[in-house]
Amino acid sequence: MPRCGKIGQRIRGERLIEHSSNRPLGFAWQLRVYYQDTDAGGIVYHARYLDFMERARTEWLRVIGIDLPRLACEQERMFIAVSVTIDYLKSARLDDMLTVSSHPEKVARTYIDLNQNIFCGSTQVTRGRVRIACVNTKNMKPTRLPGEFSQSQ
Amino acid sequence: MPRCGKIGQRIRGERLIEHSSNRPLGFAWQLRVYYQDTDAGGIVYHARYLDFMERARTEWLRVIGIDLPRLACEQERMFIAVSVTIDYLKSARLDDMLTVSSHPEKVARTYIDLNQNIFCGSTQVTRGRVRIACVNTKNMKPTRLPGEFSQSQ
Amino acid sequence: MPRCGKIGQRIRGERLIEHSSNRPLGFAWQLRVYYQDTDAGGIVYHARYLDFMERARTEWLRVIGIDLPRLACEQERMFIAVSVTIDYLKSARLDDMLTVSSHPEKVARTYIDLNQNIFCGSTQVTRGRVRIACVNTKNMKPTRLPGEFSQSQ
Amino acid sequence: MPRCGKIGQRIRGERLIEHSSNRPLGFAWQLRVYYQDTDAGGIVYHARYLDFMERARTEWLRVIGIDLPRLACEQERMFIAVSVTIDYLKSARLDDMLTVSSHPEKVARTYIDLNQNIFCGSTQVTRGRVRIACVNTKNMKPTRLPGEFSQSQ
Repeated sequence: MPRCGKIGQRIRGERLIEHSSNRPLGFAWQLRVYYQDTDAGGIVYHARYLDFMERARTEWLRVIGIDLPRLACEQERMFIAVSVTIDYLKSARLDDMLTVSSHPEKVARTYIDLNQNIFCGSTQVTRGRVRIACVNTKNMKPTRLPGEFSQSQ
Repeated sequence: MPRCGKIGQRIRGERLIEHSSNRPLGFAWQLRVYYQDTDAGGIVYHARYLDFMERARTEWLRVIGIDLPRLACEQERMFIAVSVTIDYLKSARLDDMLTVSSHPEKVARTYIDLNQNIFCGSTQVTRGRVRIACVNTKNMKPTRLPGEFSQSQ
Repeated sequence: MPRCGKIGQRIRGERLIEHSSNRPLGFAWQLRVYYQDTDAGGIVYHARYLDFMERARTEWLRVIGIDLPRLACEQERMFIAVSVTIDYLKSARLDDMLTVSSHPEKVARTYIDLNQNIFCGSTQVTRGRVRIACVNTKNMKPTRLPGEFSQSQ
Repeated sequence: MPRCGKIGQRIRGERLIEHSSNRPLGFAWQLRVYYQDTDAGGIVYHARYLDFMERARTEWLRVIGIDLPRLACEQERMFIAVSVTIDYLKSARLDDMLTVSSHPEKVARTYIDLNQNIFCGSTQVTRGRVRIACVNTKNMKPTRLPGEFSQSQ
């Protein structure tokens, strides 16, 4: 069941709420929980948080200057998830406005380790760590990260 | 495969882009297409458009003053889909910024007929018509729409 | 909330339960409702039924002899949804075993109209009609249905 | 893009393929990859593997004797994910038939640690570890596992 007595939120829509200029140091993306994200337990279905993290990650890449369709078309490269670790600390619910952070912990030659945490107001909902690797779209072999990352370090 | 040569879009995030004051006449919600929304055909998976329409519908209800968790908790009422008709006119792709409209065509005692169309720029992607009904959360029987609708007509 | 007092079902798994030899006349696919398919209203989220219908349709195509990856790779053709109409008659819930039918109503040169209904036991849950078209994977233009369909008529 | 030249698989449907009598020692669930599970990279979208793992876990619980709707209704208890760790070793693709294992590594008073690996034929696709806890549906507090687990040890 949805939560009763929740505090009204005036912020509308999915959006960027902070980022540190052009350096990939910290980034937060805000999004809303809809019925489509919840399950019959009355809470956000656990796999949906990975979808939320992908949205925040994509917007973080956009801020750095990465255009994913262009990366795939012009350079035959894409990012894929190599590993995900997620701890579910609290349950988000229908209509919650969540903030998803993306903090790169390590930028290697072919992959990035990101810390991605999700908050509902000041309450931490999940703690996540994701490794994404840049691969060739044809053979799926690891390949160098786009040039934007060498510039940003 | 993602589309090549697409025009860059500077608008960020999921958000309200227009609505006609407090009367439920017209409303548009903007959202981005991520990998999670696409399929191996390189296009948005056809059922995901219904998710997009739900997001726009929920935000339209919010503008009218409907708080879905409160409606469920305090009044034991919720909206359910009764029927959906959707025509797929063009295929949206990764990273497209879509605009989802919500225009109530008919507001009856227990249900609403909505026209919900999706656009990518000036190109119409889908044409949709949805009937949502207000039901009792316990017995799923149709019940009167929330008071906000009688005020808005 | 999940349904109480439901009748136990001994059938396990997602599977074909009937089909009429090699002619595309009737086909039923059985699948289970998991938490991932439900929402906070305690029922199957309305867009998930389209996912169920795709599974049943794919298995129906398999019976006819269509191998979708091969169709895409060797013939650069795929099926896309052109339109969907669905009426939600009853709400399916967690753990329900559903039967999804696929009955071709019309097989044209480039598209097929299918009736796809979903049942929970003897109760009809949804009534659906889907048009799928065969398109070229590169330019998305309509193209002839695979040869299996001319043989089957 | 879907994989070319894949070996045909005659096995149909989602189903149980092995389990060790009534003791929760090992269990494998088989399921098919559909367009709905893939993304524009041509591979299974990384979060969908968590959905596959939930299906296998639910069927493993069923074998042990746990009926999730009954657990929620009669005992006001449900299982929630506490943590997930997943390594993506290979990419599954459209139409692959996957086998998802569920091996309980630890059964504690209120939670279970499961190893859940996914295979495509003899190729391991993902390696996963999931902790699920039994909680009260009202207050989300941890509670004892259902009696079936004390019997099974």
